[in-house]
Amino acid sequence: MAIKQGSYTFVLPTRPAIVGSAAVVGSKEGQGPLGTEFDYVFDDVTLGEDSWEKAESALHREAVTRALAKAEKTPSQVDMIFSGDLLNQCVGTTFSIRELNIPFTGLYGACSTMALSLALAGLMTDGGIIDTAIAATSSHFCSAEKQFRQPLEYGGQKPPSAQWTATAAGAAIVEKGGKGVEIEAVHIGRIQDKGIKDANNMGAAMAPAACETIASFLEDMGDTPQDYDMILTGDLGKVGSTLLLELLELEKGIDISRVHSDCGNMIFDFETQDVNSGGSGCGCSGAVVCSYIINRLAQKKLNRVLFVGTGALMSPVTSLQGESVPSISHAVLLTSGGQ
Amino acid sequence: MAIKQGSYTFVLPTRPAIVGSAAVVGSKEGQGPLGTEFDYVFDDVTLGEDSWEKAESALHREAVTRALAKAEKTPSQVDMIFSGDLLNQCVGTTFSIRELNIPFTGLYGACSTMALSLALAGLMTDGGIIDTAIAATSSHFCSAEKQFRQPLEYGGQKPPSAQWTATAAGAAIVEKGGKGVEIEAVHIGRIQDKGIKDANNMGAAMAPAACETIASFLEDMGDTPQDYDMILTGDLGKVGSTLLLELLELEKGIDISRVHSDCGNMIFDFETQDVNSGGSGCGCSGAVVCSYIINRLAQKKLNRVLFVGTGALMSPVTSLQGESVPSISHAVLLTSGGQ
Repeated sequence: MAIKQGSYTFVLPTRPAIVGSAAVVGSKEGQGPLGTEFDYVFDDVTLGEDSWEKAESALHREAVTRALAKAEKTPSQVDMIFSGDLLNQCVGTTFSIRELNIPFTGLYGACSTMALSLALAGLMTDGGIIDTAIAATSSHFCSAEKQFRQPLEYGGQKPPSAQWTATAAGAAIVEKGGKGVEIEAVHIGRIQDKGIKDANNMGAAMAPAACETIASFLEDMGDTPQDYDMILTGDLGKVGSTLLLELLELEKGIDISRVHSDCGNMIFDFETQDVNSGGSGCGCSGAVVCSYIINRLAQKKLNRVLFVGTGALMSPVTSLQGESVPSISHAVLLTSGGQ
Repeated sequence: MAIKQGSYTFVLPTRPAIVGSAAVVGSKEGQGPLGTEFDYVFDDVTLGEDSWEKAESALHREAVTRALAKAEKTPSQVDMIFSGDLLNQCVGTTFSIRELNIPFTGLYGACSTMALSLALAGLMTDGGIIDTAIAATSSHFCSAEKQFRQPLEYGGQKPPSAQWTATAAGAAIVEKGGKGVEIEAVHIGRIQDKGIKDANNMGAAMAPAACETIASFLEDMGDTPQDYDMILTGDLGKVGSTLLLELLELEKGIDISRVHSDCGNMIFDFETQDVNSGGSGCGCSGAVVCSYIINRLAQKKLNRVLFVGTGALMSPVTSLQGESVPSISHAVLLTSGGQ
């Protein structure tokens, strides 16, 4: 059963394992630096569907289906699925999983959803409440542009601080007593809002939440950044990552520069792929964690990775109404485990 | 620690208690049959805010603040808040609670959110993962009409099967080892979709989910409807309630007609308030459960109430694309407890 450590962190003594994970992406992500890591690359980002929302659901379903197959599980062997996405009313998720007949806890954590879903799956399996859970999420560049910004046909331009929503989905099967990469600790974040109002600068809005969560996690665990091979933020991008390092240094006196990486900086090639400040979206960290990171942990090329998902909790309406962007960051400590 | 009972139900042996709850509503709900039950009625449904979204956040905040006060708790004494709402990206919740500094698990369960949040608060406190949680949700007629249907100024007409989104919010403080109405068992639902495509008939879309959850819960617990004082659905309204009774009778051979009530049928007066098929929205069951139901259980006028929240998991976009309406239903067994 989870043991609360410090103020906000839970250590999971049974170390639930990720017994299977999968990541599927679109063609642009497939051409990026991690292209060979993903389970499948869809050259046709419609996935044969007649709307971008349905394409996102198909992408989500593909990640879940492949993760189940790799874990050698059927849906009926899963006790609960934790999932959500960026689309209004989380329809990327609900239309993906509606035929699976798995008890469903719908989540909204914006781009922090992969971390939030892994955290809940970890807490509930470690707590013995359930044995097996799916944690999953998705995003799609075209559904996100349509909903949050402009229709693609409009050809809107983005400022340098804007990010590129990844067409990507990730899913992980978490099992108590299983063998695989382990969830050692989790941290549920608190909303931070430093007054950033620029909807084209999500990195700046989310950096304070990542700063607060990383500092609290280290304090709760009595750890230093050097205790981890990697502190991996979700999708701060270039602008947000720079701000995070500054904030941690100036406000908390913590230097994570030697171990920090960001999924948004890893998924695309800044030189050739024209993604401004980097990748973003629920699927960005979802796909990077559920492929590259978990694979490296399984191979013991990495041993301890603190995955710090980041989410901006505004809507297009609140931004049009002049509101600032509340943000949140949830963390999951992944370790290579005994295996 | 929760004990899984049957296929999908969890019995909570420590019986977490609702140590404080509050419901706040708008003027129309205040004029309804339960008007005197609510903690506060806002005659001005703008709540002094300059947008409907901000009004909904203010309503949500009022419910949380009042529930905390009644439980004699400060935000820093709460380990986690589980909440969500109907607005895009759940901004009703996030802008309500952004200053509370409480670890936040964002949920999306549409109108089932009160049941889902109570279920997770129950599981996590019973499991000893946390001691104290807030379960909360909200809805606002004007923000919902604007987002899901037409702007109010359009004056759109509704068919008889349509429902009236309640301007209402409910919050409950759940505590392990506390004194109060108890959470005896919870049930996380599975998505059902019987192909209903009429976005003006949410009751019909959601009735199959309630049917499945009630039948599974009774089977898992080895109970009959007569073991409860009330089986309370969230917001099926007149049309959905009639369908639920028929479905349970015809498909499952279960007759709940003597104990069935529906929050959507209770919150408004059909004779005088012109609400077509009845009330709906996250706040409908949120406010009815967090006032009338919990009050009656505390007074032991009711002893065992199976609260069955119901949610329609579509979005306006999926309906415009011709998709059917997936729905879900989560259940919480509330009992008057030892107190």
